[in-house]
Amino acid sequence: MSEIYLGMDIGGTKLAVLTGTDKGEILEKVKRPTNARRGPWPIIDDLLEMSDEVLQRTGFSLSRIDAVGVSCGGPLDAAKGIVYSPSNLPGWDEIPLKQILSVKLNRPVFVENDANAGALAEWRFGAGRGFKNMVFLTAGTGMGAGLILDNRLFRGANGLAGEVWKIPLIRKGPDDRNPLAFEYLTAGPGLARLAQQALRKNPYSKMLERVGGDIEKVTGEIIGKAARLDDPLALQVLEEAGTYLGWGLAILVDILNPELFVIGTLGIKLGDLLLEPARKAMRESAVKESVKAVRIVPAQLGDHIGDVAALCVALEHYER
Amino acid sequence: MSEIYLGMDIGGTKLAVLTGTDKGEILEKVKRPTNARRGPWPIIDDLLEMSDEVLQRTGFSLSRIDAVGVSCGGPLDAAKGIVYSPSNLPGWDEIPLKQILSVKLNRPVFVENDANAGALAEWRFGAGRGFKNMVFLTAGTGMGAGLILDNRLFRGANGLAGEVWKIPLIRKGPDDRNPLAFEYLTAGPGLARLAQQALRKNPYSKMLERVGGDIEKVTGEIIGKAARLDDPLALQVLEEAGTYLGWGLAILVDILNPELFVIGTLGIKLGDLLLEPARKAMRESAVKESVKAVRIVPAQLGDHIGDVAALCVALEHYER
Repeated sequence: MSEIYLGMDIGGTKLAVLTGTDKGEILEKVKRPTNARRGPWPIIDDLLEMSDEVLQRTGFSLSRIDAVGVSCGGPLDAAKGIVYSPSNLPGWDEIPLKQILSVKLNRPVFVENDANAGALAEWRFGAGRGFKNMVFLTAGTGMGAGLILDNRLFRGANGLAGEVWKIPLIRKGPDDRNPLAFEYLTAGPGLARLAQQALRKNPYSKMLERVGGDIEKVTGEIIGKAARLDDPLALQVLEEAGTYLGWGLAILVDILNPELFVIGTLGIKLGDLLLEPARKAMRESAVKESVKAVRIVPAQLGDHIGDVAALCVALEHYER
Repeated sequence: MSEIYLGMDIGGTKLAVLTGTDKGEILEKVKRPTNARRGPWPIIDDLLEMSDEVLQRTGFSLSRIDAVGVSCGGPLDAAKGIVYSPSNLPGWDEIPLKQILSVKLNRPVFVENDANAGALAEWRFGAGRGFKNMVFLTAGTGMGAGLILDNRLFRGANGLAGEVWKIPLIRKGPDDRNPLAFEYLTAGPGLARLAQQALRKNPYSKMLERVGGDIEKVTGEIIGKAARLDDPLALQVLEEAGTYLGWGLAILVDILNPELFVIGTLGIKLGDLLLEPARKAMRESAVKESVKAVRIVPAQLGDHIGDVAALCVALEHYER
């Protein structure tokens, strides 16, 4: 009889609750919109309802569940299971999520931030299988990192390792108090901003055709579609964003000397259009010998990653 | 009967060979100048002669030695024990040091770069005792880091973790191909350069008095002495260098969330004159929650650090 886990993926736009096995297989899944503005309590009520529903569909009672894994936006204290004001979950100020769910479900509950959970998922069941030192980057609306070092998730002193979003990439000099940070330059909104700036200077681009001329509507996906049609402006934007991404990866290479970078959302959607300039910039910026040892690949679990990530949080802790 | 180890510290200016115990106690020690321009072979001959001498003084034969630890400038491959052209050891191109010494001494030999060896020394016997996550920075003529993560030395995919010297701290924009790096801005020569630049603009400083007016002779030590006499220019230089140091530490904080930074040579010589501006800059630049968890202190082993470091290389491997 294989082990059965319950996973919860708490995102800023959607909630998912699922059952799965220790092989990373998802059995059943229930989704709802988050409606994040409601604040934590109605959302937690939803998660409990969804747990009932998914267990019913799977044909299991709660007692058959070995552990519950929760993947949630950080910052959060994984050891205590307390969530501290994630930017995509307004009102979640010091919510003792682990404690609440443990009491309600009467099962062992484990909570991890989404970057760490994603790293575990890609390492166990995705692009990172078999790698000893791997860095996963969310590269979605934010830029978080999950670090697998010497075959283990590395959390740091208080669970905040991998908070790479704030690392300055452009800082003009000793008096520059507003450097441009990794997340600002490379995550989804930053990529859109780069495209919008380029379009304001030069509106002759396939990107604009696809949004009916509304510059504000340009997204990473639109940029990618235009770039695949060889739109010069879209290619130029991805070259610039990829360069910034490569600079951030170079810093991680110099410090951690990993074997693999697995790039989430934007890495999956844009592939080599983004990753090829990133590889070039990383080669130019990082220590040569360490560059030789590392590869940059897109995440492999695709849209599945949030589900498998939640499952892996339970797996990781329960198996220890 | 306690375990006895032989340690070798191969520096750019001096060589040391010593005997010591598993308690970090140094029994006997022999020093010689490196005369690095001789190249590897006469230096290795010297190390073997010095080994004989130190063993004789200790009153032990080689067979009583449990293991030999070597601390040497990187880059080097610790697993294979091969040294690759350290900048302070000209001509050491792919020297299989571990193999050579193993054959000559007929004991187990282990080789580690000086930053990793220093990290082990401070973690076992110095400022880092009892800390689970600690970063040691050499902060001497170069800027290397040794990472203790989850109570273990972290080496990375091929032993190059902690090569932080190349991390860009000042990069003006997307087309800046010559960013100013961590080591360039913060290690000994960088500190001297900052002082020399300042003195060319404003020669009214106690620093110049101490070098007979020869700007080129200003060193970190001279800057420190002048700063302790409240020389405004020296204080300003240390403020700037400390700020750069803090920026580098901030990046390490964001990625690793350590509990402790232990700062080598310059940290010992300059103390809070350098570390206080570093703390301020780190607070301003890194993720707030992680800053709360970390302290910055000077290395505790002082001039001893190289000896204990070499000893710890043997200890670390032999006890595994």
